[in-house]
Amino acid sequence: MSQHDPITIAIDAMGGDHGVPVVVPAALAALERHPHLQLILVGDKATIEAALPTRDAAVSRLQIQHASQTVGMDEPPAQALRLKKDSSMRVAIDLVREQRASACISAGNTGALMATARYVLKTLPGLDRPAICTAMPARQGHTHMLDLGANVECTAEHLSQFAVMGSILATAVDNIEWPRVGLLNVGAEQIKGNDQVKEADRLLRQSDLNYIGYVEGNEIYGDRVDVIVCDGFVGNVSLKTSEGVAELISSYLREEFRRNPWNRLVGLLALPILGRIKKRIDPRRYNGASLLGLQSTVIKSHGSADRVSFGNAIDIAVVAVDKDVPARIDRHLERYLAGSDSP
Amino acid sequence: MSQHDPITIAIDAMGGDHGVPVVVPAALAALERHPHLQLILVGDKATIEAALPTRDAAVSRLQIQHASQTVGMDEPPAQALRLKKDSSMRVAIDLVREQRASACISAGNTGALMATARYVLKTLPGLDRPAICTAMPARQGHTHMLDLGANVECTAEHLSQFAVMGSILATAVDNIEWPRVGLLNVGAEQIKGNDQVKEADRLLRQSDLNYIGYVEGNEIYGDRVDVIVCDGFVGNVSLKTSEGVAELISSYLREEFRRNPWNRLVGLLALPILGRIKKRIDPRRYNGASLLGLQSTVIKSHGSADRVSFGNAIDIAVVAVDKDVPARIDRHLERYLAGSDSP
Repeated sequence: MSQHDPITIAIDAMGGDHGVPVVVPAALAALERHPHLQLILVGDKATIEAALPTRDAAVSRLQIQHASQTVGMDEPPAQALRLKKDSSMRVAIDLVREQRASACISAGNTGALMATARYVLKTLPGLDRPAICTAMPARQGHTHMLDLGANVECTAEHLSQFAVMGSILATAVDNIEWPRVGLLNVGAEQIKGNDQVKEADRLLRQSDLNYIGYVEGNEIYGDRVDVIVCDGFVGNVSLKTSEGVAELISSYLREEFRRNPWNRLVGLLALPILGRIKKRIDPRRYNGASLLGLQSTVIKSHGSADRVSFGNAIDIAVVAVDKDVPARIDRHLERYLAGSDSP
Repeated sequence: MSQHDPITIAIDAMGGDHGVPVVVPAALAALERHPHLQLILVGDKATIEAALPTRDAAVSRLQIQHASQTVGMDEPPAQALRLKKDSSMRVAIDLVREQRASACISAGNTGALMATARYVLKTLPGLDRPAICTAMPARQGHTHMLDLGANVECTAEHLSQFAVMGSILATAVDNIEWPRVGLLNVGAEQIKGNDQVKEADRLLRQSDLNYIGYVEGNEIYGDRVDVIVCDGFVGNVSLKTSEGVAELISSYLREEFRRNPWNRLVGLLALPILGRIKKRIDPRRYNGASLLGLQSTVIKSHGSADRVSFGNAIDIAVVAVDKDVPARIDRHLERYLAGSDSP
């Protein structure tokens, strides 16, 4: 990674279910992985300092920025924006606006993060709806899906802008030159779908994206598409449904492998194998959702992230900054909004 | 079941991926299970006759109604309705209108079935949108979910009518006196959701249903709710997403249990246990979606249903007729539309 210019990322150290005990070790490990990375941990100075080891070489690339407040996980976004101007989340975002950091990461309240980031950092010109994008596991590799909940109602124009943003993210993160983009619908036929989806389909057919048409819910986990676009209502339901199915199957596995002594024995033998499967579908492996459409990179970690998965969110921020994702989206959108069809 | 009055159900014997070879054995087995049941198999007379055993006692409760056409699985619904007036699907529905049968079942084209049933049988008074409802597996028992794809756009009024219909179906099928009804949303808080969902929430709070408020996608597979209501776009995506997750986990299981000879051996030992789990989440166990809101019972079987799962669809039709689900919905809706709050 030494070919990269030095970069600085601000981290909300107080956000999420765990805060400092997860963020500090994840930050130190990320500094080891990325020699060009510098981090600013934002939050209660004394708490962060107490968690830092005294003699870790990586500590030299780590600063602390004090913030006196925290945003509650259930706090209304508007209230956080108005009353928490010295929260760890807000100060981390302010550091990006002041260009002291190129990106920020928070495991805090998603709505507050989106509202504050949008207010402080602004959206890219011509784009009024940022979207939340994350990777979902697939047979081989993964699928980037957006929007996962920022916008419960979307126009066709919004959906087609999401397609541009997702395509650029997939190129940056996965080095796919021309990612296959699909529009989530209730069937593959042209006549299917609601008005927004049909109109978005028309817009995307005219775009310079590698648009493959409609995809159905099961294809999120297949290998036919790299980016799936939907409104935030559908995306959020689909994400939560997936969690529900995975939990149901886990509970059935536990039940069946405990049904009698023989099953328990077989379960013991199968444990390492089932563990590998669990790891492959573990949402923590995919932790780190991108808030796309803002002028800078903002990454949302899952609130319950552990050290490893918070580290994954940091890695996604590093790639987004190294590859300059917001600027790429800006350039592509400009061309897109001008109606050009050239690649 | 001998306490029930005799009932007659018409079956589209040509619909689905398999047609007669699945429908005939499933029909004979259903006649064995339900001594009060009579069946009319609709389709090509010679094909059906060739598949019937000569000396099965149950055959006496089985009639054949010839139909010269079939509806293609991908045929546009409007075309099927206009040009296929002697299709096995259409004739089965006509038998219900002529009161020669109390319900019909088809494994054919869903769109054509819905359009034809709606045209021939009509919706209940005051209701203009039938919905597709099916049971999904949960930790204990299952959850009835609607709409699964009949209506890609719904008003708040439609959603609240779906809630009434789902609640009555859950009572009939599962003998739950006052089923818990939830509205699918992107969060549990009152401020979440799009306009239709928020307005439907307001309507349902005033209803006499056991309405528990918003539920999220993962709760489809939990035990907190008996009926989940959503528009057909969201419901269809959620259903297909679930299939995708289950397929992904199956493919990971196959891969991991084949990784090396030891895993293969453990996989062999675990096979019966994994088989039980597979059976528990097998969509075929839940085969038989109800087209609710019509003046009579119409059941859609999955196109790929085998004998056992087609039999499940027949069982659902039998229960719906025995319990007179359409009339119950009619009575409840009438009260509901009159704005009464009495139970």
